Amino acid sequence: MNYKGRMSRLSEAMNRERLGTLVVTHLPNVRYLCGFTGSAGVLVVGPKPIFFTDGRYAEQAAAEVVGARIMIAKGPALIAAANQAAKIRKGNIGIESEYLSVSAGEAVAEALPKGVKLKMTRGLIEALRMVKEQAEIDLIQDAVELGCDLLPAAFQAIRPGVPEVRVAAEIEYAGRRAGAEGMSFETIVASGRRSALPHGVASNTPIPAKGFVVLDFGVILHGYCSDMTRTVHVGAASQEERDLYRAVLDAQMSAIAACLPGSKLADVDAAARNVLKHSKLDKYFTHSTGHGVGLEIHEPPRVAQGQKEVLRPGMVITIEPGIYLAGKCGIRIEDMVAITESGYELLTSAKKELIEI
Amino acid sequence: MNYKGRMSRLSEAMNRERLGTLVVTHLPNVRYLCGFTGSAGVLVVGPKPIFFTDGRYAEQAAAEVVGARIMIAKGPALIAAANQAAKIRKGNIGIESEYLSVSAGEAVAEALPKGVKLKMTRGLIEALRMVKEQAEIDLIQDAVELGCDLLPAAFQAIRPGVPEVRVAAEIEYAGRRAGAEGMSFETIVASGRRSALPHGVASNTPIPAKGFVVLDFGVILHGYCSDMTRTVHVGAASQEERDLYRAVLDAQMSAIAACLPGSKLADVDAAARNVLKHSKLDKYFTHSTGHGVGLEIHEPPRVAQGQKEVLRPGMVITIEPGIYLAGKCGIRIEDMVAITESGYELLTSAKKELIEI
Repeated sequence: MNYKGRMSRLSEAMNRERLGTLVVTHLPNVRYLCGFTGSAGVLVVGPKPIFFTDGRYAEQAAAEVVGARIMIAKGPALIAAANQAAKIRKGNIGIESEYLSVSAGEAVAEALPKGVKLKMTRGLIEALRMVKEQAEIDLIQDAVELGCDLLPAAFQAIRPGVPEVRVAAEIEYAGRRAGAEGMSFETIVASGRRSALPHGVASNTPIPAKGFVVLDFGVILHGYCSDMTRTVHVGAASQEERDLYRAVLDAQMSAIAACLPGSKLADVDAAARNVLKHSKLDKYFTHSTGHGVGLEIHEPPRVAQGQKEVLRPGMVITIEPGIYLAGKCGIRIEDMVAITESGYELLTSAKKELIEI
Repeated sequence: MNYKGRMSRLSEAMNRERLGTLVVTHLPNVRYLCGFTGSAGVLVVGPKPIFFTDGRYAEQAAAEVVGARIMIAKGPALIAAANQAAKIRKGNIGIESEYLSVSAGEAVAEALPKGVKLKMTRGLIEALRMVKEQAEIDLIQDAVELGCDLLPAAFQAIRPGVPEVRVAAEIEYAGRRAGAEGMSFETIVASGRRSALPHGVASNTPIPAKGFVVLDFGVILHGYCSDMTRTVHVGAASQEERDLYRAVLDAQMSAIAACLPGSKLADVDAAARNVLKHSKLDKYFTHSTGHGVGLEIHEPPRVAQGQKEVLRPGMVITIEPGIYLAGKCGIRIEDMVAITESGYELLTSAKKELIEI
């Protein structure tokens, strides 16, 4: 990982924002900048970066942290970090306003001497993280492949009468056995009428004798997330169901084909939406087309209506259109895509033809 | 669940704080007050409570929400909620300052007309949640029992050479199969020298031929968390290791015995610490003795030095002293305890004698 390059790009961004110091509290950002993977730590970025944590993480910090001095705080790491930032006192002090709570922000403000100005930043480090290094894309590819490898366990578990949670259990167990650090979000197994719930996390509902099952899951491997969705059918699908599935798949492939460096993210979203419009299904596509994935399962950019941001090589996004017919059924198909200099690389290798189980 | 009683106790607390309206954004608090279990929703508590969510959760909200009108927001639910709170305009508007981000807090402030005062609240609902209803204790007991039932799967997996993550995989799989909605935190399997890490989440390290293995895990069942730790020994333990284990167990049992309504939490912590002091091991006990557990894995009260808060019937806490000898070994033993009118009820039934595997 190019920690040095990240720090130097952050320095440039801080200069543009006239920030002398930045107190980094969002843990994925801390990890991105210095490699610390624990659950409590604050990084003060300035002329000489310092990482603050507590006694529980002394050993882990020593083993992991790159490019920053380590200090073990006796009280809250955040306050120690704020005090340190105040000591540096070169220009304004930035805090990550989207992740620091109002009360923590007040505590930081109180820790600062008069005359030091606190500046609220938004998405400063996320903007850097949005464009991945090749080493990151390689790790994401590994996570995506592990995710694809879990499908057979799911397919084997899907039988009429089996509760959805059991299918989730098999997916997660196979993932853990294959080395996943965990799942990147609560596993969705939504069967029958429940497939019409865009966020139908696995429940105790038994899988019906006939109908769609939406499987949406991801793993965390070496800190990086994967995300994929496949919709299968229990029993033989009707012609109407096949047509619905085909429409979603066409929409998904059309959006993937629109993934070119320089394209607007809104246009990628429109590519999926327009295909569904042809079959008058666009009103059932009630969410956006996708999102960035990396150290977090949801990170910039958003693949959505109104997004003027442009695709750049190194971005990694999901493409996941879906349709949801309340009380009836739902279908979603999701792959991950990395943007390259000349186009895109499809990271998800699992087949997308409708599978009947 | 007594949603009505909760709302009325919150009303009293709001009156004391001179709040006309409270914008509840912390999801466990939202769930506590109105039953919504989804991942996006804001509850405005006032004369007539209103719950805001987005289209994805329309169906789920209709099925779950108790005691509040449901509104589906087109934009962010938080802004819709803030606008609604401003319309009510009876006294100050409270926001949960520990959970709302600085930038979200600013967005709320901007949505309010001039003259409406925003008041930062801290722990208002958490103070209610600290004392559980019997129905909640019953659910917690179910979760704790499910947790205990997973130990055999762990013991069976623990063998020299098996990676720690494999043990975690077996625990989690057994949990899911038994109906757990998920784990309440990242499973800790810390073996050999790694047992000296208080937060040693399961790694790829193979379990050594001899040494302690700390197992610290919990499940979520019906929304409520469990938390337990057992330390076992691979191979025969030396006399020194037995003595260390005995000291931790004595400390743990002494702290449990101190769990009486009316006792100060600091005194419960001291009960564990004093036992370790006798064997000069207190300097290796580097964290606090315990914490509240409920809808969240860590919630008030804290069982720690300096805590003047007093135990009350209905509180549910962990008692988990541990010692950590860097580079050598660590031992932690953790049970959950519910405070009753006359003393305590031990929720965790798993044996605590040292097990050699």
